[in-house]
Amino acid sequence: MPRLFIPGKNAEEYRSILEGAGLPNLSLDPAPTAETEIVFGSPTLIRDALAELPNLRWAQASWAGVEPLLGPSLRRDYLLTNARGVFGGLMSEFVLGYLLAHERKILERAEAQKDKIWDASLTGQLRGKTIGLLGVGSIGAEVARTAKFLGMTVHGYTRGSETSKQVDRYFHGNDLLEFANGLDYLVNILPNTKETLKIVDEKVLNALPAHAVFVNVGRGSAVDESALLRVLEENKLAGAVLDVFEQEPLPKEHPFWETPNLKMTFHTSAPSLPGDIAGVFIENYRLYIEGKPLKYVVDFERG
Amino acid sequence: MPRLFIPGKNAEEYRSILEGAGLPNLSLDPAPTAETEIVFGSPTLIRDALAELPNLRWAQASWAGVEPLLGPSLRRDYLLTNARGVFGGLMSEFVLGYLLAHERKILERAEAQKDKIWDASLTGQLRGKTIGLLGVGSIGAEVARTAKFLGMTVHGYTRGSETSKQVDRYFHGNDLLEFANGLDYLVNILPNTKETLKIVDEKVLNALPAHAVFVNVGRGSAVDESALLRVLEENKLAGAVLDVFEQEPLPKEHPFWETPNLKMTFHTSAPSLPGDIAGVFIENYRLYIEGKPLKYVVDFERG
Repeated sequence: MPRLFIPGKNAEEYRSILEGAGLPNLSLDPAPTAETEIVFGSPTLIRDALAELPNLRWAQASWAGVEPLLGPSLRRDYLLTNARGVFGGLMSEFVLGYLLAHERKILERAEAQKDKIWDASLTGQLRGKTIGLLGVGSIGAEVARTAKFLGMTVHGYTRGSETSKQVDRYFHGNDLLEFANGLDYLVNILPNTKETLKIVDEKVLNALPAHAVFVNVGRGSAVDESALLRVLEENKLAGAVLDVFEQEPLPKEHPFWETPNLKMTFHTSAPSLPGDIAGVFIENYRLYIEGKPLKYVVDFERG
Repeated sequence: MPRLFIPGKNAEEYRSILEGAGLPNLSLDPAPTAETEIVFGSPTLIRDALAELPNLRWAQASWAGVEPLLGPSLRRDYLLTNARGVFGGLMSEFVLGYLLAHERKILERAEAQKDKIWDASLTGQLRGKTIGLLGVGSIGAEVARTAKFLGMTVHGYTRGSETSKQVDRYFHGNDLLEFANGLDYLVNILPNTKETLKIVDEKVLNALPAHAVFVNVGRGSAVDESALLRVLEENKLAGAVLDVFEQEPLPKEHPFWETPNLKMTFHTSAPSLPGDIAGVFIENYRLYIEGKPLKYVVDFERG
């Protein structure tokens, strides 16, 4: 009978969802033991428990990003799965919401209302626009699927994979500036790895058309923040929506708080909703006890 | 050779699009004549030209709403088509944008940014929510299609038709309060007719759950504005998005400008983009010269 440990403040909520799901043969440990073989929780809490889980076989992370578990001094002798599957839908809704807010001038209309101005100025639409996805994993594929449904053209930049059929055109390697050129929206969904460090630099930002909007739902480290600040201040870019930053929470003195046409969302683009996350664990647990390959396995090397 | 008259300020733009489309046998009249058989323009401009178009056979309206042509003293001896086909996509984007703005707290996040507050409070999602459509014509069907794609449950209230397969459950006649009960979002898309006058009254608004949001992209006459004001002021409704009003532009002294949780969009939910509207005319013209039934024919009786 597999023994599971759930660390942290959401343990009770997860426990009651799992008990309601009637998972076969599962036994819950209130604390880590030498016999515990599964752990389910946030990457930081899993990391903190690793030393007390000598016989850990599988860790299900409740986030998409698993950086805390990738430190070079940490063991890698277990199977690590993340929750990227549930974030595709949430990320799609987030990206779509902010793209539509831009097209339909939702914030500008609210300002007009405050000033009691009947502002019937023309708005735009997403149909016919081109979105570029920096990174097309499971989350990117879901954003692509939604964008296609709404009649957008989808471009994708990846290391080499071309798995999503919803992407109209793929770019790789040295094609990054060609990829940026001609986009209406650039959306970064890349995880934090060595190769993605400041990938959105001055060159990429300058390659975007001046009417384009940049959305970052990946990691803050993927962006050269000084370069982004400059293009926004110089009106070389119509806007930016930043969910993530190099430093979080963003320090009060950071210029981004007051940068024109920059909207920030405080790392909330894909909230971990307990029901959704528990659903990933349940799905993977059923595969686990049947000895089948799990979903959303993390490659420790690639991150 | 059919002769076409295009009234109004968009005439030149429409003319150049139609000429670019190379429509067979079409002749453009710079002014209405006794031989003009087609007119293409806004319902008000068509109405003003009716007296000078004795042999009018077909009028293509550039809007979805055709009230100006439905006056009881006006002739009805011609085929009237509207442009509702192009508004489905635009309306869907509008509705979707404001629903997502509500779920993702887009306006609240902007306020937090102004105050330099790192506001990572939990947001919601559309997946799993229930949307109710008051009126399911071609525009409603398109909103339904988009809502279903995003994983919402779709309820529809109609006179009797059940043409959209995207609607999970239909309501008719006396079921209006049952329809309203249990919705997360109520979206009015009804045209202005006698039967839809103040259909969204105090009873309907009170039947909605307190967390619900009401969106009006139909006509202002469909709503009891005093009742809506009351439920919003008493927090019996989470919000309202009004694109249309009983009186437009809304007078400066109207309380809606400052009503809590009320967002207004100044009759811009479905902008008439010349390329889109001309596309409807072009499609219908090809059917017209082949003697086939036109799309988006208006029933003068039902409006």
